Amino acid sequence: MAREKVTVIGLGQMGSALAAAFLDAGHPTTVWNRTPGKADALVERGAVRAETVAVAVAASELVVVCVLDYPAVRDLLAPVVAALPGRAVVNLTTGSPEQAREEAAWAAGHGFAYLDGAVMTTPPGIGDSANMILYSGAPEVLAAHRDALAVLGDPVDLGADAGLASLYDAGLLGLMWSVFGGWLHATALVGADGVSAKEFTEVANRWLRTVSWFMTGYADQIDTGVYPGDDATIDVQVAAIGHLLHAGEDRGIDPRLPRLHLELMKGAVAAGHGGDSYARLIETFRGR
Amino acid sequence: MAREKVTVIGLGQMGSALAAAFLDAGHPTTVWNRTPGKADALVERGAVRAETVAVAVAASELVVVCVLDYPAVRDLLAPVVAALPGRAVVNLTTGSPEQAREEAAWAAGHGFAYLDGAVMTTPPGIGDSANMILYSGAPEVLAAHRDALAVLGDPVDLGADAGLASLYDAGLLGLMWSVFGGWLHATALVGADGVSAKEFTEVANRWLRTVSWFMTGYADQIDTGVYPGDDATIDVQVAAIGHLLHAGEDRGIDPRLPRLHLELMKGAVAAGHGGDSYARLIETFRGR
Ligand SMILES: NC(=O)c1ccc[n+]([C@@H]2O[C@H](COP(=O)([O-])OP(=O)(O)OC[C@H]3O[C@@H](n4cnc5c(N)ncnc54)[C@H](OP(=O)(O)O)[C@@H]3O)[C@@H](O)[C@H]2O)c1
Ligand SMILES: NC(=O)c1ccc[n+]([C@@H]2O[C@H](COP(=O)([O-])OP(=O)(O)OC[C@H]3O[C@@H](n4cnc5c(N)ncnc54)[C@H](OP(=O)(O)O)[C@@H]3O)[C@@H](O)[C@H]2O)c1
Repeated sequence: MAREKVTVIGLGQMGSALAAAFLDAGHPTTVWNRTPGKADALVERGAVRAETVAVAVAASELVVVCVLDYPAVRDLLAPVVAALPGRAVVNLTTGSPEQAREEAAWAAGHGFAYLDGAVMTTPPGIGDSANMILYSGAPEVLAAHRDALAVLGDPVDLGADAGLASLYDAGLLGLMWSVFGGWLHATALVGADGVSAKEFTEVANRWLRTVSWFMTGYADQIDTGVYPGDDATIDVQVAAIGHLLHAGEDRGIDPRLPRLHLELMKGAVAAGHGGDSYARLIETFRGR
Repeated sequence: MAREKVTVIGLGQMGSALAAAFLDAGHPTTVWNRTPGKADALVERGAVRAETVAVAVAASELVVVCVLDYPAVRDLLAPVVAALPGRAVVNLTTGSPEQAREEAAWAAGHGFAYLDGAVMTTPPGIGDSANMILYSGAPEVLAAHRDALAVLGDPVDLGADAGLASLYDAGLLGLMWSVFGGWLHATALVGADGVSAKEFTEVANRWLRTVSWFMTGYADQIDTGVYPGDDATIDVQVAAIGHLLHAGEDRGIDPRLPRLHLELMKGAVAAGHGGDSYARLIETFRGR
């Protein structure tokens, strides 16, 4: 089966990885970048270099854009907007939900299909279906071009609100920084007693699967608004975090992160929720 | 093959789950609890009730203890210490690394085998080999009783330093609170735009697997002390966290957690490490 033609605009680290994945999968791939030299390696691997954005968008029905930010996207597309109806623009540039919704409205006003996306990996993870690419906006674009888009990573459809891919992206990156913080804190802690990062991280990665299982249960609690502390209450966590703080203190580890967790827990206890599960802290995060 | 006899001392939520798992796997199980009534349900399922701690430790070579804290463990074992040589005490009570090391030294002084452990799940997760039980201390106890201990969860051997199970435990719980915090913050964020916790958590759990893959790579960087920012630099993360802070602000979400992450990142940038990978923050957490 012939692979559909695709265009990639923006050949930074991420755009280059996207174009390379399309080429590897046999898609005829047209590329454009502001600094043309960044296309050289891809052209060597079979990509077609477009001399202008207009030529690039004319080459394929599916146009993937991945540049620095949304203003750059608009600067590139505005001059060629008359050529866009009939094409599908998939914007994998990082931005805010509001920017994504604005871009979708602009696309609607100009009669072309717009799908917003968020790449949930780094360039070396592109092409691995274990990694997700989140999409929101025009559902028909994902339906029509799913085979091509699946080449980049597993497409996850978040529905018609174009802002959701960016909103999820922000939230998931926040989760990542939290995971990194907790993991680095713990790695420093056990490292003080001679445990290598590699040894500890193997166990930490297994532990994340158990934590995932806790989250799945807690998600149901959040959706129903009932937080039974059957297994482990916030009170129990307050007691347990003492071991972490003391062990860290003894070893000179930075206490800011566990101190903040304790502060958040204590807030819930002060509000009378010490007997509830940790999921009750959603109310703290909601800021109400 | 006959299953070995086991004794469980302490029948709170966790001890009861441990004893139930032994019974389910066909181990002749003797139980003792300070408040005797907590043994009733287990006795109905086939456990033997010991009237005293002395009777309980006499019943089996393998003695599992899971009570509130280490002082309670010592209070229970000190009066029967003369009966312990020849037996193996496996202590699954939560405590500090220092307490575990003290307990191991006390056991050595009294000539009995002591294995410290940390249960890395809640009571409903006991008996599922997807979950870990960490062990450190007398390696021969784990070797001799692995089949029985594997009934509770997957035994992970951390070696001869009795303090390591507790130290890992503290670090892993810290990781859990960080994961919970990042996940609750993100769930509140997307929830403000109408996404259910269940929908978001499915994606978050998949994302954790990608984050695990990042951690594996970063662990190597930490062990070698070289932090190339090939894929994503701290500078890039500082730019990206702006979207999270703004999106949260617009929706009234509690900013304490992402603000702390930004503060930690900015510290690394100020120290001249903005071009390095996030793993460089290990130095911040080391507090040096
Ligand atoms: N790298 C990652 O791990 C990752 C992960 C997820 C999402 N993303 C997102 O993907 C997007 C691209 O990231 P990247 O890593 O590829 O960054 P990068 O390597 O810095 O590349 C930036 C790209 O944007 C182009 N560009 C910037 N300003 C422009 C303008 N005004 N007009 C035209 N082109 C412009 C650059 O062109 P020149 O070559 O001419 O400078 C280059 O192609 C960003 O939104 C980023 O947040 C990246
Ligand atoms: N629950 C969890 O999710 C979980 C997870 C990992 C680790 N742990 C650890 O497992 C241990 C037990 O937790 P749990 O959840 O079973 O707690 P729990 O339900 O509160 O039970 C506490 C147990 O300790 C006994 N106890 C307390 N003080 C005692 C004393 N001075 N002398 C004799 N017995 C005493 C209690 O006896 P009475 O019945 O007579 O009060 C009861 O059997 C703790 O160290 C906990 O940190 C628990």
